[in-house]
Order: sequence, then structure tokens, then C-alpha cells
Amino acid sequence: MINEAIRDKLALNSPSNAFNIADFGCSVGPNTFIAVQNIIEAVELKYHGNHQNHQSLEFQVFFNDHTNNDFNTLFKNLHHNHPRKFFAAGVPGTFHGRLFPKSSLHFGHSSFALQWLSKTPSEVLDTKSPAWNKGSIHCTGFHTEVAEAYSSQFKNDMETFLNARAQELVNGGLLVIIMPALQDGVLLSQSSIGVTFDLLGSCLQNMAQSGIISQEKVEAFNLPIYISPAKGLEALLQRNGFFSVEKIDRITSNMNTNTLTAQFLTSQLRAVTEELIKGHFGSEIVDAVFELFNIKLSENWFSIMDTKNQKFMDLFIILSRNFSD
Amino acid sequence: MINEAIRDKLALNSPSNAFNIADFGCSVGPNTFIAVQNIIEAVELKYHGNHQNHQSLEFQVFFNDHTNNDFNTLFKNLHHNHPRKFFAAGVPGTFHGRLFPKSSLHFGHSSFALQWLSKTPSEVLDTKSPAWNKGSIHCTGFHTEVAEAYSSQFKNDMETFLNARAQELVNGGLLVIIMPALQDGVLLSQSSIGVTFDLLGSCLQNMAQSGIISQEKVEAFNLPIYISPAKGLEALLQRNGFFSVEKIDRITSNMNTNTLTAQFLTSQLRAVTEELIKGHFGSEIVDAVFELFNIKLSENWFSIMDTKNQKFMDLFIILSRNFSD
Repeated sequence: MINEAIRDKLALNSPSNAFNIADFGCSVGPNTFIAVQNIIEAVELKYHGNHQNHQSLEFQVFFNDHTNNDFNTLFKNLHHNHPRKFFAAGVPGTFHGRLFPKSSLHFGHSSFALQWLSKTPSEVLDTKSPAWNKGSIHCTGFHTEVAEAYSSQFKNDMETFLNARAQELVNGGLLVIIMPALQDGVLLSQSSIGVTFDLLGSCLQNMAQSGIISQEKVEAFNLPIYISPAKGLEALLQRNGFFSVEKIDRITSNMNTNTLTAQFLTSQLRAVTEELIKGHFGSEIVDAVFELFNIKLSENWFSIMDTKNQKFMDLFIILSRNFSD
Repeated sequence: MINEAIRDKLALNSPSNAFNIADFGCSVGPNTFIAVQNIIEAVELKYHGNHQNHQSLEFQVFFNDHTNNDFNTLFKNLHHNHPRKFFAAGVPGTFHGRLFPKSSLHFGHSSFALQWLSKTPSEVLDTKSPAWNKGSIHCTGFHTEVAEAYSSQFKNDMETFLNARAQELVNGGLLVIIMPALQDGVLLSQSSIGVTFDLLGSCLQNMAQSGIISQEKVEAFNLPIYISPAKGLEALLQRNGFFSVEKIDRITSNMNTNTLTAQFLTSQLRAVTEELIKGHFGSEIVDAVFELFNIKLSENWFSIMDTKNQKFMDLFIILSRNFSD
């Protein structure tokens, strides 16, 4: 799909110098290397076909993630990932703001990063607010004011992301976004990922009841994650004046429940939430949280794996930077 | 001096986009941030005076060091070093080769990095070679064949460094190099730093005699550091066809021996050589090496601090990228 996007939608003359690619939310690899490799091969193919000057084209790839991402590991993985056809750089900092000079990128990429909010909306932690998310650690969808607070933070974050990228990308450049979304009418707690968040929340509640962690700490903890309804996300992208929506493809994630194990799902959730739990509750309780989660998941396996909870999809989005400002 | 260099020698039209700076051998800060801040202020001053368009000029700064440099610490230090006027990126990899696309840098900087060789010349570790450096861990200067092997490796490394930078810098761009050099006719073991290397070597010999480390390991250990005679370095720079030597200033490092302590000097040497010793002998012996070094340094303080050993200087070098290839 990236190949097609570059062939059909990349509206650039052959860059005189280097072709600059950035991956926003790269983590430590190897997924980011695979994505970048795909992009480079597609660009080489395009310029080889059209301009016969692919040999002189050089690539510079910028790997972006939070400052507390483990760039040392990223760079070591990159170093062992020979041969590579590009010059590499790591760029620390939040992508909800400018990271690059004006018009310095030809291609942006972001995979499974934009569901992360820049922060948990403050109202959902405020016991005096109608949006107080009592008894839950995420945006289940059942509580309207909570959903609105999360949705509003998400809109704000998507706008700051897109507006920053609009400045950094050259006119005609492409931005590919892959991110999870909900089917219309489905609430997060009715989806497979929402059910696991609920289960994680119940583990923290149990540990508070046992006095291992404080009730106040649990009430002050909400995941800064928002899975948008697909339609809302599409409307938000259409509304941004800097980009044209070239493509939105819906890819339904059908987990093969036959080969899944509780341990595997636990390790997946741990990879996603461990740093947050460590930061909020302290590193000494992390093992206990996920041991309890693993037990509860095994005990409730069949209700959690219920196929009516699998209404979850990923969106493959291609935006092109408009020529007019 | 950097200010003057940028004012008088930077032969660039105002860059249309960003002004790109790279620091080669940046370590983890804060020295690299101070250097970069100086460069940016001088460039802003120049374009403010000449072109009145400094407000639209953005800066992108690339921090380069080996892949095993602690970029996580660099990025955290950078993050806490507010406010900053530039977009930052870390670039892992050896500077004895290409790191950036062609003509993508306007200013290169390297401070106290080019005395590090890409490797210890193999002859000096070869017991069958006339250049075998028996009984020493560095290029003392007393052994002609050893000095030639080190000097040849240094020439080779300087050439690969300069040739790579020549491709990466735009025509008219500047390369500032600060590096140690020896006064003409002085051997390394006659300089303050050479004396401390000799002392470190004697510590390793003592530990081998005591059976703490093996004699073979000590014989297979030589520092990949070369302090060139100033004249030889100047000739080497003059010979490179890609750059013009705009300035070479000699700055004599006069250590204030009154305020120096053995502990301070030991910590300085440890900062420079710890990783090498750890990599070669194992981390478990590092503390013992520098404890012994500290004792020996205290015992021999007056002979080591002898002013006739201070014939040591730093060179401040400005090269400009020629317009003709």
C-alpha cells in the first residue's frame, strides 16, 4: 500500500539533494526499519522509472520518539541491521509540536503512535468534574462526559500533529498514518483492546482493596490512549486545510484466537502500559500487576475472547501536503 | 574565534531553508551545547547584519558520536537545556566515513575528537613486527617504527574524515576543528598527557606482575590515540584539496599546577580511557586500575607536574569548503 501511494500520489519533482523521511513514534525497532525500507524501495522504484537518476538520490531517515525512548537500543539495532541504504538520525521530542525545519521532509510515517494522547485530559481525574472517570482507567465509551474529554484532547493532539507536519513537509510530500480506530457505534469497552484495559483496571482496583497500592493512586490513573471512532477521525482529517486525504483504507484486525495465549496477550499489554504504570505506581509493583492480570485473563479467557468483542480495526491513511498554504 | 570565523569566512548566501550544523564527537554534553550555541549566535548575527532575514532562518543541529555513545543521556541533557533555538538530531556512527547526504551541512564542528584513531594500528600489537610497541600502551615517540605506524593511521583517519566532510558540506561551508597537538620536536612522553599515559601503562604492568591481569592482555593493549606534531598536522590539512585552511591558531594549555589534585587528574584520565580498559580487560578491574593510578600519581606528583613536561597545545583550525571540486 505504501508502494502504491508513492507511485501514484507522491507529487514531487526528483529532489535535488536527499530524500528525507521521518518516522514519528519509532520506538526501538525493528518495525520502524521495515517501514523505512519499504518507503525507500518504493521511492527508488518511482525515480528509477520516471527520472533515471535514482543512483544519485540519497536518503536521510529521521527516527522520532519521546525523549525517554531508548535511542541507545534503537541505534544498536540499526547498527546491526546491515546493509542499509540511508543516513540515519534520531530525533527526540514530542511529535505534538515542531521537530524539523520548514519544508525539510519529503515523507512522513507514523504507525500505531497517534492513539497516544499528549496527556490524560485533566477533567477525567478531577473528582469535582462531571467528567470524573471514577472506577475506570480508560475511555470505556459508556460515560459521555469522559468520552467528550478524551475526544476533545484527541482532536487537539491530532491538530497539533498535523499542523506541525504541514510546516515540515514539502508541498506534494506524503504523510502515511497507520492507527487503530473503532467501527462506528462500537464503544471501546466493547472491543477486544477495551476489554483488556477494563481487566487491567480491575487488577489495580483489587490491589488497592488489598492495600498494596493506594485507592487515591488508582483514582488518579487513566491511560492517555484514545481509540477514535473511524468516522470522527476521517472528518477530522478532511477538515485539516494543509493536507488532502488521498486514501483511507480500513483493515480489520481479526485475531486468531486459536493460537493466542494469555501469556502472550499479557506481554503485549505489558509492553504498551508498563512505563506508565511504573511512572505512576513505582517499579516495585509492576510484576505483581501483570501476574494478577495474567491470572485474571486465564480465568476469564472465553468471555474475553468472545468474538463479539473483536470489532476493532486499523486505518491506513495517506495524506498529501497541499501546494497552496 | 568561532564568531570571527563565521563573520569573516563563511562564504554562503543566506540558506533558503535551514542552517544545518553538525558536531562530530559530541559525547553527552554540555560542551557540545555551548559550542552549538556559539555557532548559532554568530550565524544569526551575520545574517541579521547582512540580509535582514534572520527571523526566517531555522537551525537544525546534528549531534554525532559513536554508536556506543550514550545518546539517551545526551538527549536528556539537551531536553533540560532550555531554551534552545534549534531542532536537534542524534547521528550514531563513526565520523571516519559518510554520515550525511551530499551538500546537506553548512557548518561542521569537532572538538577534541580527532586525536582518537579509528583503531590501534595492528603492527604495534604484532610481536613479529619491527613496530611492536613492547612495554608501552601508547605512542611515546621514542620508538620510530611505532611512531610511524601511529602517524600513518592518523594520516589515513584524517583523510577519511576530511573527504567525508567535503562531500557533506556545501561549497563555502566551514569546518572548525579543535584538537591537541605537540610542539615541534617534543615527543608525546615528554608532554604532560604522555607522562600520564606512561604512568597508566606502568599500573597495568604492575597488575600483570601481581597476576591480577595477564601479561598477554597488557601487551595486546595500546591506546588508539595520536597527538600529532603541529607541523605535520598543518601539512596534512594544506594537502587536502577540498578545503582551504583559513586559520590555524595555537593555544598553549598551561595547566595551573597549584590548583590541580591527583584525584582530579585521575578522574580526567578515567573519563578518557575507562571504556577502552573496560572493553579490553573487563569491568571488574577498572576501579583497581585507577586506584593504583591515583596512588602512583600522588607519589610521583612533583616529577609529573615538572613544568618541562607541559609542552602541550591545542590547535584551533578553520577550514572552508572550496567551491571547485
